[in-house]
Amino acid sequence: MKTVEKFFEDFEMGETRSTSARTITETDIVMHAMHSGDWMPHHVDAEFCKTQPFKKPILHGNATFSIATGLCLQGEPLNPHGMTYGYNKVRYPNPVFAGDTIKVEVTVVSKQDDPKRPAHGIIIEGKTTTNQKGECVCYAEHVLYVEKRNV
Amino acid sequence: MKTVEKFFEDFEMGETRSTSARTITETDIVMHAMHSGDWMPHHVDAEFCKTQPFKKPILHGNATFSIATGLCLQGEPLNPHGMTYGYNKVRYPNPVFAGDTIKVEVTVVSKQDDPKRPAHGIIIEGKTTTNQKGECVCYAEHVLYVEKRNV
Amino acid sequence: MKTVEKFFEDFEMGETRSTSARTITETDIVMHAMHSGDWMPHHVDAEFCKTQPFKKPILHGNATFSIATGLCLQGEPLNPHGMTYGYNKVRYPNPVFAGDTIKVEVTVVSKQDDPKRPAHGIIIEGKTTTNQKGECVCYAEHVLYVEKRNV
Amino acid sequence: MKTVEKFFEDFEMGETRSTSARTITETDIVMHAMHSGDWMPHHVDAEFCKTQPFKKPILHGNATFSIATGLCLQGEPLNPHGMTYGYNKVRYPNPVFAGDTIKVEVTVVSKQDDPKRPAHGIIIEGKTTTNQKGECVCYAEHVLYVEKRNV
Amino acid sequence: MKTVEKFFEDFEMGETRSTSARTITETDIVMHAMHSGDWMPHHVDAEFCKTQPFKKPILHGNATFSIATGLCLQGEPLNPHGMTYGYNKVRYPNPVFAGDTIKVEVTVVSKQDDPKRPAHGIIIEGKTTTNQKGECVCYAEHVLYVEKRNV
Amino acid sequence: MKTVEKFFEDFEMGETRSTSARTITETDIVMHAMHSGDWMPHHVDAEFCKTQPFKKPILHGNATFSIATGLCLQGEPLNPHGMTYGYNKVRYPNPVFAGDTIKVEVTVVSKQDDPKRPAHGIIIEGKTTTNQKGECVCYAEHVLYVEKRNV
Repeated sequence: MKTVEKFFEDFEMGETRSTSARTITETDIVMHAMHSGDWMPHHVDAEFCKTQPFKKPILHGNATFSIATGLCLQGEPLNPHGMTYGYNKVRYPNPVFAGDTIKVEVTVVSKQDDPKRPAHGIIIEGKTTTNQKGECVCYAEHVLYVEKRNV
Repeated sequence: MKTVEKFFEDFEMGETRSTSARTITETDIVMHAMHSGDWMPHHVDAEFCKTQPFKKPILHGNATFSIATGLCLQGEPLNPHGMTYGYNKVRYPNPVFAGDTIKVEVTVVSKQDDPKRPAHGIIIEGKTTTNQKGECVCYAEHVLYVEKRNV
Repeated sequence: MKTVEKFFEDFEMGETRSTSARTITETDIVMHAMHSGDWMPHHVDAEFCKTQPFKKPILHGNATFSIATGLCLQGEPLNPHGMTYGYNKVRYPNPVFAGDTIKVEVTVVSKQDDPKRPAHGIIIEGKTTTNQKGECVCYAEHVLYVEKRNV
Repeated sequence: MKTVEKFFEDFEMGETRSTSARTITETDIVMHAMHSGDWMPHHVDAEFCKTQPFKKPILHGNATFSIATGLCLQGEPLNPHGMTYGYNKVRYPNPVFAGDTIKVEVTVVSKQDDPKRPAHGIIIEGKTTTNQKGECVCYAEHVLYVEKRNV
Repeated sequence: MKTVEKFFEDFEMGETRSTSARTITETDIVMHAMHSGDWMPHHVDAEFCKTQPFKKPILHGNATFSIATGLCLQGEPLNPHGMTYGYNKVRYPNPVFAGDTIKVEVTVVSKQDDPKRPAHGIIIEGKTTTNQKGECVCYAEHVLYVEKRNV
Repeated sequence: MKTVEKFFEDFEMGETRSTSARTITETDIVMHAMHSGDWMPHHVDAEFCKTQPFKKPILHGNATFSIATGLCLQGEPLNPHGMTYGYNKVRYPNPVFAGDTIKVEVTVVSKQDDPKRPAHGIIIEGKTTTNQKGECVCYAEHVLYVEKRNV
């Protein structure tokens, strides 16, 4: 495993990176329904979907979110000084259909101290997932605790 | 598909329901790594895990989140008046290991108007996922837009 | 897990319920071939299928049967007084193709005593799985042993 | 695809063959739950199972049935003169646990004419699936229509 | 498990057999990417593929190789006297797309002694996988050690 | 997708890199059996395995090979000047069991001209997959055609 020593001080507001892309398939929709147990008709009932605005099955929001997370991590070195605390504001502004190709742009949108944990700082990465037309299909704020080099 | 006609006015602060339970297996960890492409060593490298505080592989937070969502939906009727807007504050306070059994409690924690969309209200459901010891392993706030019966 | 206390006496001849629907995909055909190990060419060899009356791959009968069972159980409460004994007369009168949407209607078709087990009765549920055109693609008789409230 | 020309007349009462064996794993239980959508607690809730006679999760009967069918077909030549009509009397007399190894014995148990289809006969194969202790875990009667060589 | 007693002396140069066929699906491409972790854009990024000579995603070579191996083994008896040593010269001269149907022809292309192991001989099987147009999509030389009947 | 412009001249004999690690699970063995259709008893019949030298199921060699390839590609940039031609000498000197953790070391072991294609050179990468004890479980020679910068 490649590692990187990246402390709180090393993150810069606005620094950005983008991931490789992945085409979503019917298999991904079925696979997520199976694994999560979420069989809502918007995802797996094509006859129901014909009666809805989108006309065909859409990927589960949580699947977009999970796949976006995977794209962000592929090939990334492990930073032993950071730890995922959770996410803020997960939004799904547009649907993802089988055949769409998605990728993610990750930007540092916030750096702040945590009064309760002086040895750490809080980094928030904004993760914007877009489809092949450039439409945002998922926006999530990833909250990380990162050790400070100098406390 | 069973449906229910539940308008904004029909949600009550503090109303609660709980789901059935599901035991997480090694298969679930591997399956989520495969589907998401998140192969971080905390989930799939048992030798690395021996060097970490938890000693063994842990389920990906997003997998807990997706499975919790699936548990919440199993057997739930479709409400044509509600629409998922996203999530707030997704947190993973404790790890999930293979062999743990999780279930979810869903509580209405907020009802509010949206000045920009007078025909709808915003419902926030707090979803608390716990393991067999009663420890919280995931907390998420699910944000729903729900039509009002009387505008 | 939701439970229901339903004794033999509580079942009524002719009572019926229907399930939500699910669209069968190519993924389902491949997945069942993989899991069962049934790679007969009717399911997985498109060139062979072109020479057959149906012209394209069909879902395995047992997969229809398994998925139909899953549809029947989604959201159903657990009845501690009943136990599956098996099935009678499983039939596949029409094929299922990728793209078809199936659902199930369950009807109590028989209530009878079992001379050997006076504390129980035998309930037979007829499970009729239909596609989006209303054609029956699977008919199965589900045999349940159910405790009697008053023996 | 290997084929065999086997007509109704070529089946003999009592002829028998047995299959190779397959060990059932936790993966198989989870996979069947996922594919079928049958998440009943007997299969996927280890805490619930501790309160039941069997103490641990059991494989879904339909999964045993599907895997048994796959075992019966592995390496079998295609007989263009036969066609599955369905099954009679599917029974699950004993549970299957992760770690059990199952195999199938197939015996011709009935040969009969069908007054309505003089060009075909009905063959019934009894399929007995046993575990490593020799206990029967599934018994199914497979109903085949087979063309007659001489009508 | 059916077995066969086939010694080194029983293999004949040029002896050949062919397998049943299997249609490759989009599911197979996604499944192999997931299981292997190989998410190169040639397999899973449809937008990238539009810029390449083949225009659409292709199956991973290793997946063709694995599926070809599976086809070769289906229904084959176990020979306790042989053991896979490895492969020589695995080549992928043409791409495999979703929708292609592949099968394998296996031919004994070499029989030789191994000076270091006089009780065994080395058999090399040439495995030629072709698509529905007869184009070779994978060629592999399978190296087997086989016991001699008479040493 | 990150890319790198690496020509034939840029490869150096003996250059080496190593991958992150992955623990093989029972799920991986079952998954490969399912996807490839290779159900040989060494992989999926635990009772048979008890009679063999290794005593328990082993991962399919081709699965080790595929997973090793995936490990080699994770996080690697795409080199538009290189193309996989195939593999030489794939060997499986030691078995892989569920629970083993494998990683790969990739070394350039050969650089040669191809008289028939003067614009390209042939690079051979030796890929050595080892388990947590340092034993080699797969060795493969990966053959690449790489464009020359200066022809």
